[in-house]
Amino acid sequence: MIVALAGGVGGARLAKGLTEVLAPDELLIVANTGDDFEHLGLHISPDLDTVMYTLAGTNDPVQGWGIAGETWGFMQALERLGGETWFRLGDRDLATHVERTRLLRAGRSLSWITRELCMRLGVHHRVTPMSDDAVRTMVHTSIGTLTFQDYFVRNRAEPAVTRVEFAGAERAAMSQALRTALESTALEAVLVCPSNPYLSIAPILALPGMRAALERRRVPVVAVSPIVGGRALKGPAAKIMRELEQEPSSLTVAQFYRGLIDALVLDQVDANLCGPIETLGIRALPTDTVMKDHRLGVTLARSVVALARTLGNAR
Amino acid sequence: MIVALAGGVGGARLAKGLTEVLAPDELLIVANTGDDFEHLGLHISPDLDTVMYTLAGTNDPVQGWGIAGETWGFMQALERLGGETWFRLGDRDLATHVERTRLLRAGRSLSWITRELCMRLGVHHRVTPMSDDAVRTMVHTSIGTLTFQDYFVRNRAEPAVTRVEFAGAERAAMSQALRTALESTALEAVLVCPSNPYLSIAPILALPGMRAALERRRVPVVAVSPIVGGRALKGPAAKIMRELEQEPSSLTVAQFYRGLIDALVLDQVDANLCGPIETLGIRALPTDTVMKDHRLGVTLARSVVALARTLGNAR
Repeated sequence: MIVALAGGVGGARLAKGLTEVLAPDELLIVANTGDDFEHLGLHISPDLDTVMYTLAGTNDPVQGWGIAGETWGFMQALERLGGETWFRLGDRDLATHVERTRLLRAGRSLSWITRELCMRLGVHHRVTPMSDDAVRTMVHTSIGTLTFQDYFVRNRAEPAVTRVEFAGAERAAMSQALRTALESTALEAVLVCPSNPYLSIAPILALPGMRAALERRRVPVVAVSPIVGGRALKGPAAKIMRELEQEPSSLTVAQFYRGLIDALVLDQVDANLCGPIETLGIRALPTDTVMKDHRLGVTLARSVVALARTLGNAR
Repeated sequence: MIVALAGGVGGARLAKGLTEVLAPDELLIVANTGDDFEHLGLHISPDLDTVMYTLAGTNDPVQGWGIAGETWGFMQALERLGGETWFRLGDRDLATHVERTRLLRAGRSLSWITRELCMRLGVHHRVTPMSDDAVRTMVHTSIGTLTFQDYFVRNRAEPAVTRVEFAGAERAAMSQALRTALESTALEAVLVCPSNPYLSIAPILALPGMRAALERRRVPVVAVSPIVGGRALKGPAAKIMRELEQEPSSLTVAQFYRGLIDALVLDQVDANLCGPIETLGIRALPTDTVMKDHRLGVTLARSVVALARTLGNAR
């Protein structure tokens, strides 16, 4: 069984590829919940939803978030009523937030609700939040400390990031599915999807016991770099690297994960970085990492799983 | 200044007519909130919304509730998620419920929120809930005691009604706008719209002080019968009359309001009932009460206001 740590779009695409390579009982997809927030009285879990919609095949592939063929009647009416419209909630998407919020208020855990919603959407592979406790990513920036969505959506990730903090992480417990998987004798490998290291993977690593579990390296840990040719395919990862006075590159990704991963899969355009990465004690595998379509996502998933299994067998 | 007590569709149509006959400072429309309920974690005020949408001109005139040109993406997605779909919430309509619920949770009163939403929708005449406190209409029926929406929507008003109860009414206060209007020296008349007497007007009458205020009869009180030719134009009023062993007629309406009203406006097809109604000490005015279109609503509003003013002048 393989555990895959995922953020939003990039993570969801690799996760979708993994579902074609691994059976439902061979995979646990762990989604970041540091981006979760309360908006208009609703609990919103953007990364969980992106993963869930992508696996269900109902995601909007152009926009990168939300549901394909979405309508916006709610948003238009809310605007007319003078409500907050900076965070766009589609009519269909809204059903997820309303139902999840209702179930949370009824005392169900985010894990339980995620299982239930996935089942309803016909997602057979297991998806779990990283934690059922609240962890809130706070972004320290040039214009002050912002909540994640305030930084990412309202301010379009424009303010320069100085530091990222995960409020509540020190008191949060891993979700039971994640903890059980990490302790399971059936665990083969942990994969880190090509999500933003600072904003999507770091919140998962901030959970008590998570970093130690990876450092112990009982099974191979393989990450996929989200940086290709010095640029992030989506989102502000490269921009944040520059703001933190790092070179935006897969080498910086390798340094960020140093001590936690055995291997880094990076794009072949960055093959020249393999040498420097291997000097960090991290195996580097160049391949095509740009998941332009589902087929390429499956190919990448197959390469990553093969690498992890090879590393496992070599122990 | 005139106070109009209103329930849903019939009340909203007369209220719309009244807005063409009276200036914004000459009218206060008081909506029943006994139908209000919590659904999917949202506070829903069906009669307030019907009045508000009708005055804003955004109501769906065919369906009788909700917003014209509504879309149903939310409902379809909720159904797929296994959520409760017996109460239909349109995408645009949902914005009202989400925004109202958010403001209630932020500590605003239903009165304040109603003023705010009306302002946003361009409604210049004043609309107020009957109370800012929770009053919940409970319908005792052949299949047990049901909440209003359970009776009305989920069970399509099919179970036979034995009794109607207004839970919380004895502890509820009239909204400030209603109380102030009833005490105002500028008050000219109270109108009772052609809404269901048992389900839409009775909750308003159940508020402490309301019945006494009408009985005192400081100003003329004029009701419009919702029964035409032994049938209700909409909803279960006639059916309930039969279940309560009353003849479905405007005479039964007059008996229901006896002691509270000075005059009843009824449809000309029921002109034969004017005699029996007048023996109850209630003036009866036959006219065309079927508001098939807005023009007929204005005509009826003009007749009702003229009657109330004539009665007032005759004192």
